[in-house]
Amino acid sequence: MTMMGRLIVVDGVEGGGKTTLLEFIRTRLATAGYSVLTTREPGGTTLGEEIRSLLLAHRQDGMTLSAETLLVFAARAEHLAKVIRPALSAGQWVLCDRFTDATYAYQGGGRGLSLDKIAVLEHWVQEGLQPDLTLLFDLPVTVGLERAGRRGAMDRFEREGENFLERVRAAYLERARQQPDRYRIVDANGSLEAVKSQVDALLNRWLEQLHAG
Amino acid sequence: MTMMGRLIVVDGVEGGGKTTLLEFIRTRLATAGYSVLTTREPGGTTLGEEIRSLLLAHRQDGMTLSAETLLVFAARAEHLAKVIRPALSAGQWVLCDRFTDATYAYQGGGRGLSLDKIAVLEHWVQEGLQPDLTLLFDLPVTVGLERAGRRGAMDRFEREGENFLERVRAAYLERARQQPDRYRIVDANGSLEAVKSQVDALLNRWLEQLHAG
Repeated sequence: MTMMGRLIVVDGVEGGGKTTLLEFIRTRLATAGYSVLTTREPGGTTLGEEIRSLLLAHRQDGMTLSAETLLVFAARAEHLAKVIRPALSAGQWVLCDRFTDATYAYQGGGRGLSLDKIAVLEHWVQEGLQPDLTLLFDLPVTVGLERAGRRGAMDRFEREGENFLERVRAAYLERARQQPDRYRIVDANGSLEAVKSQVDALLNRWLEQLHAG
Repeated sequence: MTMMGRLIVVDGVEGGGKTTLLEFIRTRLATAGYSVLTTREPGGTTLGEEIRSLLLAHRQDGMTLSAETLLVFAARAEHLAKVIRPALSAGQWVLCDRFTDATYAYQGGGRGLSLDKIAVLEHWVQEGLQPDLTLLFDLPVTVGLERAGRRGAMDRFEREGENFLERVRAAYLERARQQPDRYRIVDANGSLEAVKSQVDALLNRWLEQLHAG
């Protein structure tokens, strides 16, 4: 019997270095002996990447929040069925750049869709599947904005401004507060090296707990 | 105060003449003095038509049933918010080619998604809004298949064959049985003229009841 793999998510507002550190985390897990698949949301499948393009193309022309959220979960359903669940069943570890917390944070906290409505779709699509570990990259909104601006990566969400991003950040932190077992908050308000060594320490402790448990 | 418009849906398996009779119904309602908007699902908006293309493009390569159903409802959410609800609020009547019954029939009855899961999304998206009248074009599957084949309109659903379409038909009829107030079953197993006069009679009776009520 193959042991089920684990699902590890990196999430949080832009500018925290989560995507930059994805390869570092992958290597760290591979060194620990795991077969690791890295993927991202929204996307991760052919259909998912097409949905991602639809989302980007229509965000400016006022797509309704309901349609946007259903599209995000359609991509997630395909991603789970075609990529994440098969990999986990085959004993692979899956390292995913953003997952459902981003929906709670951006569509919920940021844009104001009720968290209960998001929870209905989460249950509909995931049927109880949750990440084993979510590394939440947290940093002050002004710092994140400055970093994103510096690398020319201001997307629509950044353009919605500071108040929007404060709500997004608060929603992420609230999720982590509610489910402390599966979240680790990374203080991303430092140099990349400082964040990296923090992630390394968090991962080591988590892997030790996993093996002890 | 403007009076709310009414939502009238034509639905049913292919080959029953529902799309052909859309213009006849529109004219009949316009003659009765109503301002009528005709539209269709999936589609009806820019985003919706793009989702419709995604659905058509991916149906053959095994898109998951969950993703397919979420895409259908994403298009429906946009359609409701951008087209149907504004028209109804402005007092227009909306005549729509297919609606949520088609999801119950094709994704539910045909492909086997649980009707409870469809009901969750129906409630999530429609929040109680239901068609005022659904004209269900019903005919034996073999007749529908033959007609669709004759006009070269065999799509994937027809290609799934007779058993699939029998389940679709049964699901439509079960919906109509459960909610007799808002359904009228059109026996579409006759000439177009016969179906047309039947639709005309059904509509007349329904309009009379509406005015009497």
